[in-house]
Amino acid sequence: MADPGRIAHSAAIAAGEARAGKAVAVVVSAMAGETDRLLGCAEALGGGLGEIETDTVLAAGEQASAALMALALKREGLKAEAVMAWSLPIHVEGPPGSARITAIAGEGLEAMVAAGVIPVVAGYQGLSPEGRLATLGRGGTDLTAVAVAAALGAECDIYTDVDGVFTTDPRIEPAARRVERISHDAMLELAAMGAKVLQTRSVEYAKAKGVTLRVKSSFLEPGASAGTEVVEDAAIAERRVVSGVSYVRDQARLSIHGGAGAAPAEALFAGLAEAGVSVDMIVQARSRSGGAVVECSVAGKDLPLALAVAEGLPGEDLAVRSEPGLAKVSVVGTGLRGRADVARTLYGVLAQEGVAVRMVATSEIKISALVEGDLLEKAVRALHGAYRLAAAS
Amino acid sequence: MADPGRIAHSAAIAAGEARAGKAVAVVVSAMAGETDRLLGCAEALGGGLGEIETDTVLAAGEQASAALMALALKREGLKAEAVMAWSLPIHVEGPPGSARITAIAGEGLEAMVAAGVIPVVAGYQGLSPEGRLATLGRGGTDLTAVAVAAALGAECDIYTDVDGVFTTDPRIEPAARRVERISHDAMLELAAMGAKVLQTRSVEYAKAKGVTLRVKSSFLEPGASAGTEVVEDAAIAERRVVSGVSYVRDQARLSIHGGAGAAPAEALFAGLAEAGVSVDMIVQARSRSGGAVVECSVAGKDLPLALAVAEGLPGEDLAVRSEPGLAKVSVVGTGLRGRADVARTLYGVLAQEGVAVRMVATSEIKISALVEGDLLEKAVRALHGAYRLAAAS
Repeated sequence: MADPGRIAHSAAIAAGEARAGKAVAVVVSAMAGETDRLLGCAEALGGGLGEIETDTVLAAGEQASAALMALALKREGLKAEAVMAWSLPIHVEGPPGSARITAIAGEGLEAMVAAGVIPVVAGYQGLSPEGRLATLGRGGTDLTAVAVAAALGAECDIYTDVDGVFTTDPRIEPAARRVERISHDAMLELAAMGAKVLQTRSVEYAKAKGVTLRVKSSFLEPGASAGTEVVEDAAIAERRVVSGVSYVRDQARLSIHGGAGAAPAEALFAGLAEAGVSVDMIVQARSRSGGAVVECSVAGKDLPLALAVAEGLPGEDLAVRSEPGLAKVSVVGTGLRGRADVARTLYGVLAQEGVAVRMVATSEIKISALVEGDLLEKAVRALHGAYRLAAAS
Repeated sequence: MADPGRIAHSAAIAAGEARAGKAVAVVVSAMAGETDRLLGCAEALGGGLGEIETDTVLAAGEQASAALMALALKREGLKAEAVMAWSLPIHVEGPPGSARITAIAGEGLEAMVAAGVIPVVAGYQGLSPEGRLATLGRGGTDLTAVAVAAALGAECDIYTDVDGVFTTDPRIEPAARRVERISHDAMLELAAMGAKVLQTRSVEYAKAKGVTLRVKSSFLEPGASAGTEVVEDAAIAERRVVSGVSYVRDQARLSIHGGAGAAPAEALFAGLAEAGVSVDMIVQARSRSGGAVVECSVAGKDLPLALAVAEGLPGEDLAVRSEPGLAKVSVVGTGLRGRADVARTLYGVLAQEGVAVRMVATSEIKISALVEGDLLEKAVRALHGAYRLAAAS
C-alpha cells in the first residue's frame, strides 16, 4: 500500500467483499517507501537487517498501516479493528529479520469475525519467544496473510501490483496470458521467475496448510479480474499440460570431466557450498570415452569463485570447463509428469529455432534448458507459442 | 528527537551518564514531524485524535524512535534494548488520545538495569484495559519519563529545546536568567507560561510521586548546563523569594455588580462552566455602596460568550461590565507565602511605571495582576528588575 489514497482503495476492495456477505480479515504491509525509510534510519545509527532493534523499527510501518486501514474501513461504514502481531499473538522463532511463524492464536480473530468486526492484522512481524518484535523478511506480509487464512480456515486473496501469474514475461512475449488456476507446485516453479508476484515460502506455507491463494492486482477495479488462483493439485481439472514458461538470466555452466567414482562430484559440491556458491541445475553423465562428466549451472556472478573451487580440486586427470553468458528457460506445469512429448517438443522447437541446448534438467513439473543468453528471448517466445499458451483457456 | 542525527546526539548524552557510573533508563518521543505526518495520514482516512485506531497509528512513531535509540546506544558500546509500552506493560485508562497512566510494571526495567542493559522505553503510549495501544496526549512522553523514573525510584532528566525554566520570557526581558532550582508548585505556576517547557501534568505526577525532575536543553553539549532542577518544596533552601515572572496575553475582565448574596456568582460560574468558558482569576469584593462585586478573567476569545452568559442572568439590579485587551502578569515563588512585601513591591513598581492594575488575585505561591495588554512587556520588565531576578544566584 503506497499512501492513504491506496489504503482507501484497498479498503474499498475489502468492503466490497464484506458487503457481498463474506467474512473478511485483512493483512496489511507498510506504505510504499516506508520500510526503506525506516531501514535507512536504522542503518544511519549502525543497525541493519538481522538486528533485533531494527525489527522493532521496521515493524512500526505495518503497525501504522493496519490502524490506517481500520480507519478506512470504518469510513466505509464497517466495523474494523487493528490487530497487532504482539496482541494476537503471532508467535515466531528464528533470527531477527528472517523469523518464521510457528503459531497463530486464531481464537481472537474468530471472535472478531463472528462479531462482525474486520480484523486488520499488521503483516511482516511476530512476537519472539523473548517477547520482542521480529520480522519475517521479504514477502513477510504475504506469509502473514497465508498464516492468518490458515488459522481462520479461509481462502487468501493477495493484492499486489501485477494481475496474477502470467504464462511468461509479457515484456518478452506480448501474447503472454494470465494463468487462471495453477497448482502450488507449479506456482513455486514459476515464482522463481517473478519473485515480485509471490514469495516461495508463502506458497509453501499455503501448500502445507491447504490454503487456496488468489493473486490479484490491487490497481484494477474490484471484480475487473479474477487474478490467478493457486489451488491444491487435486483441485485442478487440468486441461493444459503446461502452465507457463519461466526464465532466469545470467547463468553459467561449469563442468568437470574425469576422476574416479563420485569423489570428484562430492568434492566439487562441498567446495562450492563452503564458498557460498548457489548451484541450480546439476546433471551427471558418462562421456563416450567412459569417464564421468559432472555439470552444474551457477549464477554468472559466481562463476569466477566456482572456477577457483573446481580448479583447486585434487586429481591429475580432472578437466574443468566453463561457459559464461548463458540463460535458463523452463517449461512449467503440473500436467508435465511423465509426458515425454513435452520434452520432445522442447528439444524440437529449440532446434528448429537454432537455439542450442547446453544442459537440460527436469523436475516433476518442470523441464529446464540452459541456452545462450542472446537467444533467451527467442527461446521463450518459441516455447510459449509451441505450447499454445497464448490461446484462451 | 528530530532525526537519526539528533538521536545519535541524545544517545551520546545518555552514554555519558552511563559511563559516569549512573544506572540509566531512557524514554523517547517520536522523531520531529513524525507525529504530524502520521496524524495527517489518519485524518486523510477519516480518523482523528480521540479515535483508538489513530492511537495505534501515532504510537508507531515512538516505537521506531525507541529501537533507533537502542541502536545508537549499542553503537556507543553500551547494552540497550527497546521496550514497548505493551510489553512492559505501561497500563493506561481513559479516552484514546488522552489516556492516563495507572500503573507501570517496574520489575522488568529493574532487571534490565541490574543486568547493565539500558531500557529504551517508547513514550507517549500505554496498554489499555482492552489490550489496545492508547496515547497520552500532549506532553505524553514527558509523563512516561516521570512515571518510569517513579517506578525505578530514579531522578528524571527531561531534554527539550530550551535550557530549563527562565525567570521570565527572554524575548521580553533579555536579562532573564535560568532558574537553577524550583519547587514543583512554582514550576506548575511558571509552566502555564511556557507550555513547551514541561506539561502541567508531568509536574503534578512528579510532585505526587516525589520525583526530582531536571529540565535540560538537548541542543547544548552534555555538561554545558545543569538546566533547571524541579525538587520537592522541602528540598529547596530558598535564597530567593521570587522564582520568576510569568505572563499570559489576551485576557479579558468580566464583572457583575449587585444581586443578593452568593446567588449571582453561583449562577454566573454555573453558566460559564456550561458554556465551556474557562475562568482564570476570580475575585469578590463589596463595593462602597454595599453591593457585591464579582469579577473574573477569561481568555479574550471567550469574552463574547461569557458576556452573553452574564447578560442572561436573572435579576433586575445586576450590572454587567467587561473589558477586553488585557494581559496577566504573575510573580511566582515558593518563598512568597505570607510575604506582604512582595505584594507591596508589585503594587509599587507597577504604579511607578504607570501600569494600572485592573484585578489582583493571589495563590500560595503566586500574585497575579491583570493589566492593559499594551503595557504587559513594560510590566514584565519592571517586575523582573524589581525582584532582582537578573542577578547571579
